[in-house]
Amino acid sequence: MIFSHSKNQMMKMIRLIGFVIVLGIFSACTINTENKTEITSQTVGAIEITNPLPSWNKGATKASIIDYVNDVINTESENFIKIPDRIAVFDNDGTMWSEQPLYFQFYFAIDRVKELAPEHPEWKNEQPFKGILENDLNQLLASGSEGIGKVLAITHSGTTVAEFQQIVSNWIKTAKHPTKGKPYTDFVYKPMLELLDYLRANNFKVFMVSGGGVEFMRPIICDIYGVPYDQILGTSFKTVYNYNDGKPALERLPELEFFNDKGGKVVNIQKIIGNKPVFCGGNSDGDLAMMQWTASNKHKSFMLYVHHTDSVREWAYDRESHIGRLDKGLDQADQDGWTVIDMKNDWKIIYPN
Amino acid sequence: MIFSHSKNQMMKMIRLIGFVIVLGIFSACTINTENKTEITSQTVGAIEITNPLPSWNKGATKASIIDYVNDVINTESENFIKIPDRIAVFDNDGTMWSEQPLYFQFYFAIDRVKELAPEHPEWKNEQPFKGILENDLNQLLASGSEGIGKVLAITHSGTTVAEFQQIVSNWIKTAKHPTKGKPYTDFVYKPMLELLDYLRANNFKVFMVSGGGVEFMRPIICDIYGVPYDQILGTSFKTVYNYNDGKPALERLPELEFFNDKGGKVVNIQKIIGNKPVFCGGNSDGDLAMMQWTASNKHKSFMLYVHHTDSVREWAYDRESHIGRLDKGLDQADQDGWTVIDMKNDWKIIYPN
Repeated sequence: MIFSHSKNQMMKMIRLIGFVIVLGIFSACTINTENKTEITSQTVGAIEITNPLPSWNKGATKASIIDYVNDVINTESENFIKIPDRIAVFDNDGTMWSEQPLYFQFYFAIDRVKELAPEHPEWKNEQPFKGILENDLNQLLASGSEGIGKVLAITHSGTTVAEFQQIVSNWIKTAKHPTKGKPYTDFVYKPMLELLDYLRANNFKVFMVSGGGVEFMRPIICDIYGVPYDQILGTSFKTVYNYNDGKPALERLPELEFFNDKGGKVVNIQKIIGNKPVFCGGNSDGDLAMMQWTASNKHKSFMLYVHHTDSVREWAYDRESHIGRLDKGLDQADQDGWTVIDMKNDWKIIYPN
Repeated sequence: MIFSHSKNQMMKMIRLIGFVIVLGIFSACTINTENKTEITSQTVGAIEITNPLPSWNKGATKASIIDYVNDVINTESENFIKIPDRIAVFDNDGTMWSEQPLYFQFYFAIDRVKELAPEHPEWKNEQPFKGILENDLNQLLASGSEGIGKVLAITHSGTTVAEFQQIVSNWIKTAKHPTKGKPYTDFVYKPMLELLDYLRANNFKVFMVSGGGVEFMRPIICDIYGVPYDQILGTSFKTVYNYNDGKPALERLPELEFFNDKGGKVVNIQKIIGNKPVFCGGNSDGDLAMMQWTASNKHKSFMLYVHHTDSVREWAYDRESHIGRLDKGLDQADQDGWTVIDMKNDWKIIYPN
């Protein structure tokens, strides 16, 4: 265990992270994709799935998904949707994989500080690095937004993109979840992977639309989800192009370009995807705007909330949570008849392993 | 003919448009894609093409393209490129269709002023609208960047996106080129459409990366090029999401978000596509940065410049042109051995009709 996590510590940390993100207290790194992981499992075209969603228990939730898909792919149905309009968007943290006790990207930042520490002997006596190196969350928290901003800046900058993506790729291969002691990729939801496959088999184009950093996610989730880089949308930082006398590079500026959350998700969906989704998966109020946007489609649409109800196999949280708060979204799902996954009862299996 | 176009007028106009764009003197419109045109011709997977590039004359240019593709799709070749890395990017104006005597999007703005004029009787005496309504480019030019900014603001705002895209769709169906008197879509280059098909048939993923407005291009080029909305990158404006009591809308702010030209094209390629291209098509110095970026790929890459050399069938221009200037790009193409299309000699046919 890296840190002991009290609820108050968590809430304070989250508020600070949010504050830092909104202020754009981020730093530079250089971006390209030379070392990106290959896509090995992208589904192209319709593949027959004889037993869709095997990790889902029989019941209203599973049935509602299958009924929807069967309806909109049926050329005889008044709800038929042509293939180019079969756009599906999914949040990542808490929707595709776990997000407790903190977003995994933040553990990346903490681990990165430790990795860089040998080059920075001064950090032993300098906050917020001292707190991280002593595994003391309270010291880190006491450094406030300025301290957390420093951590995020140092850990997401100072490299080329090839280097950054390699760093992320290396980290995800070896890092362990702070309380569970297993690789972070063990915390992907098997039922959701099956849902992506099922949608793609029915010619939906699947996009990730996450508050996480887009260049952090790409090397991690592309392979696991079978989603290519250009179908992954996330928070981004300003970059500038530099020809560098024939060795061109994109240099990242210490400035947040776009925070991909709430209404920002809708803005990015239009800007990058250009088409209103018909299928939307999320788990928090941060996904409510894209749910509403999807619900306003002229085509029959499907809004799917993951409700974290399984304190034994995963975590149980909703209206009062410091991470992935689901409050207004739960109300609107109830009011408008959106589908809510009861993780405890609807999912036979949660994690692949 | 809407306007008489002298070279001096053109140069002044272009400088002013560039100035206006850089300053971000643009206004609001609301964006969604409800009324977008359907994609009807997207190629998925490998389709055998027995006679690729039929509108291209035999010669070094055509051979270099086919040799490149055959090399990088050959699993036995040391230059083999896996499918997810077969990213091709193309500029639009001057690369996929003509751009003379002015970018077609600017004629849209001029035509839109005329369409809106009945609602604005005051425009008869108010510049820059008076000049447009009197078909007098000199009056419009005399209004300066402020005047052109007004025109762009009025013509690209004040509507929802559904409305804006419908307006663009209607315009492209009826508008005529100011000097040629034919629909703008007649000025698409048939050899380039064949090239897109050929690349897609060999599992390249084709993206448009243009300085034009992304929401202007989407309803026009999606069908013609067979490129889906999410593979069209362009200049964009800031938008905000408004739930509007259950009728959600994206409202465009009078602020340029991103000018997709020069180094900006590289920035957007990384942000949105996430992968460095291996194939790049362009026609001007505005495309040089993405050519250089493509040339820096670790995979074997192909840089293709369209050189406008046919004053009879199209237009002839390069180093001194007010639109689509190709000067530094021509030098680097020569120096680095990039392929340059001599439009007059390499293209058997230019336009489909």
